[in-house]
Amino acid sequence: MTAPGVSPRVFARALSAFRAAVGAQHVFTSEDDRLAYADPYSPDEQSHLPSAAIAPASVEEVREAVRIANRYRIPLWPISRGKNYGYGGPAPVLRGSIVLDLSRMKKIEVDAENGTVLVEPGVGFFDLYDHLQANNIPLWLSVPGNSWGSVAGNALDRGVGYTPYGDHAARICGLEVVLPDGDLVRTGMGAMDGSPNWQLYRPGYGPSWDSMFCQSNFGVVTKLGLWLMPAPESVMGLDFEFDKPEDLGWVVDVLAPMRREGIIQQSPSIGNWLRAAAVLTRREEWVEPGRPLNDSAIEAIRKRFEIGWWSVSVRCYGPVEINEATVRFIKRAFRGRSVLAMNEARWVQGDPPEGSPVTGTPITFPLANANWFGGRGGHIGYSPVLPSKGDLALRQFQRTYALYQQYGMDYHASFAMGERCLTNVNQVLYDRDDPDMMGRVDQFFRALVADASENRYSEYRTHIEYMDLVASTYDFNRHALLRLNERVKDALDPNGVIAPGKSGIWPASRRRRRR
Amino acid sequence: MTAPGVSPRVFARALSAFRAAVGAQHVFTSEDDRLAYADPYSPDEQSHLPSAAIAPASVEEVREAVRIANRYRIPLWPISRGKNYGYGGPAPVLRGSIVLDLSRMKKIEVDAENGTVLVEPGVGFFDLYDHLQANNIPLWLSVPGNSWGSVAGNALDRGVGYTPYGDHAARICGLEVVLPDGDLVRTGMGAMDGSPNWQLYRPGYGPSWDSMFCQSNFGVVTKLGLWLMPAPESVMGLDFEFDKPEDLGWVVDVLAPMRREGIIQQSPSIGNWLRAAAVLTRREEWVEPGRPLNDSAIEAIRKRFEIGWWSVSVRCYGPVEINEATVRFIKRAFRGRSVLAMNEARWVQGDPPEGSPVTGTPITFPLANANWFGGRGGHIGYSPVLPSKGDLALRQFQRTYALYQQYGMDYHASFAMGERCLTNVNQVLYDRDDPDMMGRVDQFFRALVADASENRYSEYRTHIEYMDLVASTYDFNRHALLRLNERVKDALDPNGVIAPGKSGIWPASRRRRRR
Repeated sequence: MTAPGVSPRVFARALSAFRAAVGAQHVFTSEDDRLAYADPYSPDEQSHLPSAAIAPASVEEVREAVRIANRYRIPLWPISRGKNYGYGGPAPVLRGSIVLDLSRMKKIEVDAENGTVLVEPGVGFFDLYDHLQANNIPLWLSVPGNSWGSVAGNALDRGVGYTPYGDHAARICGLEVVLPDGDLVRTGMGAMDGSPNWQLYRPGYGPSWDSMFCQSNFGVVTKLGLWLMPAPESVMGLDFEFDKPEDLGWVVDVLAPMRREGIIQQSPSIGNWLRAAAVLTRREEWVEPGRPLNDSAIEAIRKRFEIGWWSVSVRCYGPVEINEATVRFIKRAFRGRSVLAMNEARWVQGDPPEGSPVTGTPITFPLANANWFGGRGGHIGYSPVLPSKGDLALRQFQRTYALYQQYGMDYHASFAMGERCLTNVNQVLYDRDDPDMMGRVDQFFRALVADASENRYSEYRTHIEYMDLVASTYDFNRHALLRLNERVKDALDPNGVIAPGKSGIWPASRRRRRR
Repeated sequence: MTAPGVSPRVFARALSAFRAAVGAQHVFTSEDDRLAYADPYSPDEQSHLPSAAIAPASVEEVREAVRIANRYRIPLWPISRGKNYGYGGPAPVLRGSIVLDLSRMKKIEVDAENGTVLVEPGVGFFDLYDHLQANNIPLWLSVPGNSWGSVAGNALDRGVGYTPYGDHAARICGLEVVLPDGDLVRTGMGAMDGSPNWQLYRPGYGPSWDSMFCQSNFGVVTKLGLWLMPAPESVMGLDFEFDKPEDLGWVVDVLAPMRREGIIQQSPSIGNWLRAAAVLTRREEWVEPGRPLNDSAIEAIRKRFEIGWWSVSVRCYGPVEINEATVRFIKRAFRGRSVLAMNEARWVQGDPPEGSPVTGTPITFPLANANWFGGRGGHIGYSPVLPSKGDLALRQFQRTYALYQQYGMDYHASFAMGERCLTNVNQVLYDRDDPDMMGRVDQFFRALVADASENRYSEYRTHIEYMDLVASTYDFNRHALLRLNERVKDALDPNGVIAPGKSGIWPASRRRRRR
């Protein structure tokens, strides 16, 4: 099934051209191949199935692939490694697009002294971690909870981690991008040939483009500069457990000022009891199939894992003396509050590695939550942003908790605290082998988006199926920002070949496909 | 003198339309008025003289002005307050442009709890400071050394200050922008009508635009969201003096790791002896007119002000206990080094206000350095970026110092330390009444840019006279970034009405004007 408007004859000619450009062994067209690029957690793999995939090995091959796409007016869907399950994995918004798989591009250039790296899109967190370890480079990664994806792809989609460098997009410093017409641009100081400042100074001169290539379809990023955290002398902090759902409110209000003032420099994530249970156990251990997780099941889960209704870890990074002072300060802020448990965490250079995302080690075990229901599991991400205020957080929890119950889903959410806002990260778990449940997921998701929109909240990223829906909630001046994005899209990509539909941005020729 | 291609008849009709739109009393066309919008520090006020200025009072008036500009194909040069002397003040790149003076737009909306403000372009640092004081709002500004300018304008041109919020462009959170066709867009979360997150979460959904409107001519910013620092419990730090020019190298190498690791969170600025002398005295006190400032003059200056060849202040912001630990750490880093003087600075809530930019108080006295030579003074800014490494900083100093001497100018420079780079901020002082000196300024400036370019450094911002020159140094792939900028420029501004030539970006119709 080719993309709409692409005839089988044109498609075949394009494939020949792609084979000549990247090598026949790197053009994938079989049914199995195509399914490997489907959305692995989707209820219906067909709705976003690509028509083929091609895997160039170099910037020049990417440029040639883009030129071919223009010649045949064939849409490409660039992926770095395609591991962002929960948001669509490697699958394109537009069915029949050809996946431009950049996972063979794996160059790593670390500048150990300045604490930066230049990575190609195929470099995974494990690749970079291994590279740093093998070369004894004292720099730490910031990794997402599931770290099997691409360093560059994660940053470009605004993924987050747990250290002070956890806002990955904010640490991007300089890109190399193949534009939709095949031109090659370097952003920031990289716009000067041979600049030593490409990875050192972000904005460059004039308008700066790095954040324009995030969550966008304005080009294909082939190199990404990223700042890495110098290995700290110590990591110290506190692990908190809180007993009641209502504790969320005051906990937010105690943490938010410290986060805003920079006393806490990473983003604490306040998550509920299902975070642990879903990774380490199966639902059937706690409740009969089809029955809701009632209070006694929640009680049992909390008892087994010795956790609160909510848990949160706070960490400080740096010299021992400063961290000790900071941890004392944070402890004092909780004095007199009804904390269920508070444990100190302390790691100092020379101690055995913690092996957790908090210390920049990539992991994948949270993926195990796909087994929660026992069938072929999956999840979809839902991540609205709201102000960092306790009453609003509590209401957000209460409203969405009621919706989870209404739709018969298990509440699985956290509130990640940025400097001035909360991201309410929901992983809606489901069993793809349960048709009844799968029938509810779409309506549940739409109900969540509608609920947020009523409160004038919206998602900062979303699943490929809902990119138009979420874009439609950005409605100031009759969707002025979308108009602006699409004017730029048309200027840069007149043939509409790069990622049509990404973030709700469609090229002129396919704008009628908006849903 | 109208802009090239604008006939006197069309100009007159446009003025009528502008008068109808903003009121006749807010359209300025007399010779005196026009000179008030000239570059006040320019050797030749005529070369960038506007043909008129108009001062709308509201977003709707700005939109109407932009529509009129499109109707008559008349270039507008938007300014916020036009106080950025050293880079051209209120004057346009293209002679005969009409200045769009936004200084009447002075709305301020502070969100005290979240630590943000939404300002219109006419709001100056003093306005905002007064507003915070009058309303007892415990938020601090970050102000530039000369603080008479616009809060929004300074951030959009990537101005800097001295607190942890000193990278002003990095603290922008959400814009309202009149596009070149008169459309109105809000960026980030403001793209959702009524979003409470507009000033709280920066990127929004999809490509993010805030940094695209910095140093650019893609639109007219009419509102700017900015994060403000919660008033810290204390400000502590160290003031250092260093004896020899060569000390610059090791000082950079001692400070840079602490800056990179986030132990120092503001940008220390290592400046030479002329910083103090030029503000507080006149050159004639130290040396006969026309003679170079020799070693004995430098010696005398340093003795009077009790300063080193280089001086630098480092400051920490936050709780007393944490700051004390941090200052101890920083002191230890200098142990065993030949420091000429090191004094501790300590301010705690309740102490009398320091009244300096270090504590967020706007000041203007550094402007007094315009009197250094005694005539009608002025300066031009020269600010290349280089890696944060001692050997490179020292060589940068040595090369440019030699150029200052070669061109008979007085070395006046600092190295401001960002997280991973140095900005070598030069204020080249001159006497506009000295034709011999003024004859050298242009060649000197070009020599500085050429010297930087040989080392593959370039400026992060520049004077209106040199925007093309500096843009030309960004030469990767035959100026690919400029091509990209101009493609977007043409898409958004087909009639080329907004700030032609800004940052070297010209609309298609005027691209032949590039120098």
